[in-house]
Amino acid sequence: MPDRHSDRGPLTFLSTDPAFPLHKGGKIEIRPTVRIRDDEGLALAYTPGVGRVSSAIALDPTLADDYTWRSNVVAVVTDGTAVLGLGDLGPAAALPVMEGKALLFKEFGGVDAVPICLATRDTDEIIETVARIAPSFGGINLEDISAPRCFEIEARLQAMLDIPVFHDDQHGTAIVVLAALRNAARITGRELADLRVVVSGAGAAGVAVSQIILEAGVGDIAVGDSKGIVHPGRPDLTEVKQALAGRTNRTGLTGSIEQALAGAEVFIGVSAGTVSEEAVASMAKDSIVFALANPEPEVHPEVARRYARVVATGRSDFPNQINNVLAFPGVFKGALSVRATRVTEGMKVAAATALADVVGDALHEDHVVPSVFDPFVAPTVARAVAAAARSEGVARR
Amino acid sequence: MPDRHSDRGPLTFLSTDPAFPLHKGGKIEIRPTVRIRDDEGLALAYTPGVGRVSSAIALDPTLADDYTWRSNVVAVVTDGTAVLGLGDLGPAAALPVMEGKALLFKEFGGVDAVPICLATRDTDEIIETVARIAPSFGGINLEDISAPRCFEIEARLQAMLDIPVFHDDQHGTAIVVLAALRNAARITGRELADLRVVVSGAGAAGVAVSQIILEAGVGDIAVGDSKGIVHPGRPDLTEVKQALAGRTNRTGLTGSIEQALAGAEVFIGVSAGTVSEEAVASMAKDSIVFALANPEPEVHPEVARRYARVVATGRSDFPNQINNVLAFPGVFKGALSVRATRVTEGMKVAAATALADVVGDALHEDHVVPSVFDPFVAPTVARAVAAAARSEGVARR
Repeated sequence: MPDRHSDRGPLTFLSTDPAFPLHKGGKIEIRPTVRIRDDEGLALAYTPGVGRVSSAIALDPTLADDYTWRSNVVAVVTDGTAVLGLGDLGPAAALPVMEGKALLFKEFGGVDAVPICLATRDTDEIIETVARIAPSFGGINLEDISAPRCFEIEARLQAMLDIPVFHDDQHGTAIVVLAALRNAARITGRELADLRVVVSGAGAAGVAVSQIILEAGVGDIAVGDSKGIVHPGRPDLTEVKQALAGRTNRTGLTGSIEQALAGAEVFIGVSAGTVSEEAVASMAKDSIVFALANPEPEVHPEVARRYARVVATGRSDFPNQINNVLAFPGVFKGALSVRATRVTEGMKVAAATALADVVGDALHEDHVVPSVFDPFVAPTVARAVAAAARSEGVARR
Repeated sequence: MPDRHSDRGPLTFLSTDPAFPLHKGGKIEIRPTVRIRDDEGLALAYTPGVGRVSSAIALDPTLADDYTWRSNVVAVVTDGTAVLGLGDLGPAAALPVMEGKALLFKEFGGVDAVPICLATRDTDEIIETVARIAPSFGGINLEDISAPRCFEIEARLQAMLDIPVFHDDQHGTAIVVLAALRNAARITGRELADLRVVVSGAGAAGVAVSQIILEAGVGDIAVGDSKGIVHPGRPDLTEVKQALAGRTNRTGLTGSIEQALAGAEVFIGVSAGTVSEEAVASMAKDSIVFALANPEPEVHPEVARRYARVVATGRSDFPNQINNVLAFPGVFKGALSVRATRVTEGMKVAAATALADVVGDALHEDHVVPSVFDPFVAPTVARAVAAAARSEGVARR
């Protein structure tokens, strides 16, 4: 540890925390995939040989997919406004997280990923900046950008670009939640259409989770934020929440999240809020509780387990960890492999179904999603995503 | 090769050119530098462990230099307007060259480099885009951006950022030329102050070469472009050429480049023009000819050698190859190692001096610069650049 920090209060923990030596110097590097041994090799890999490759691409720009790393490389883009659960830490502080993401992309999906931390938090500037650097990349993974800007940024960028734009805090979470929900429903002998779901949180994850489980055929959803259940009568809704109000809450609930839980089959928490033991007890028999807030779940999993049949969290020290790394490496691997122009809702649902199926015969209350170290996860998800891209007509090869 | 090209005229050469299989799939990849073997490893490298590193950086942003890859990673940025000698091919076609550059950065300097090809050629947009992605990088290598925009882009970016911004087509070339010129002067028993130099080309390379050799103490320079020698009386000069006219051409030459060569000690060609045998013959005894145009030198080196004592080209199949790879890996390695905020003229001159000295006792008419495969080149240049950064007060550590 640098000496200069030894007498500073807030940073003294550096010297005892094993995370710091592990992150020293960063967690990724660039490595050549071809070796240059002599003048002849240099003349092929660089000038003049590379000039012939460039000239061919100038005639047919799609050749860049074959003769550069572009079709396997993703930009992991953030403005640092919603770093993990820590909030607005800025671009420099977001870099270790984006590097970690790049590490996971390669380790689990074989996908190259480059951290891009932006010195702006203006929606228009973020969009135009990403669009301008896009020729170097086969996909854009948006990360840790605060709601509601994240929705507009993703939608407008996807409309401008012919490569996938994927906000992982939304869709990565949504895919893994849907996979877990499918398997939890299987265990409790229900169809998705039989389920009434209460989602706590209407930020990036809450909106995307609601969207994907509706797409997958869940019976009814009520979404709550810090002011209670989202319904069309509330005057304080953002545009995104208004849209949500129009598509959810068929029974017209208007109270608190805890009130909505009475008789519900499923709770999905993706907020920093809490849910009381009484509220969990009021749910339907054989209920399903996904308390995903990190590091403190909305209800402690051991408490929830007294009433619920299936309990999941975001933590690795309890059963059923809902971890985005189960989704994003395979999703991008699959999308890139067929040069998909976007990641459609159908591709996300296919990813979730494939992920749920990886569990197979090992399905159990405490094993509704595979381990993140299961080597079949990313290839299985990738195959499903590629097939869905083809059947939805967004594959370019 | 893809079948779809088999019946297309301009692209049939793909199938016989050995450059294409070598570039297939790209030339670089991202590799993790830490391994994740289990839940515990994941919890340190990613969440929650990485959150503690991010929190520390949020308190002290300079910690990002220690706990991310930033202080060893350079963005190689282009708009594709001046790709090698091929001209304006656009960003996709520039990508193989930027990847090649990244490969050389790592192979020769141990520096990580990321290709960034921009979908804009607007000066203001390039500047603001690079400034916005800068928090992810320890340096910016501008590449293959056409003159005169390249001058303004570099200068304005350097004024905005506290990391080195270095346009390699200018300064990489200039450093290697100055190194070669020092050694050529040594061989011919002259001081730099004794030399009258004619530079053919007033683009990126010509301007930077003129600047560095003036800085290093060369006696007089005349710079020519396609309209002849640059002098204050010409009404057609860009701002950059006007500045050049004010600092060069002490004897007030006004004619052609070939006329200016009569009696000159040195010719440096960095244009696509040609120089006749007669003009070379008219130079001073023991003249020095650097005919660096690629792939066709301004005068064939065997012709030049009939009159000149030292001849250099940009090609690997003749002696004395002036290749930027002798400079940029070591320059960035050195600048990054001391967290330099910029690359000053003094650092460039120090790089050139160190590069010239690597040749040592092997100095010879046909060996005025080291081989690009000499393993001492990058470390020696890096040490000199780091020391110069310290003595010029631009080092942060």
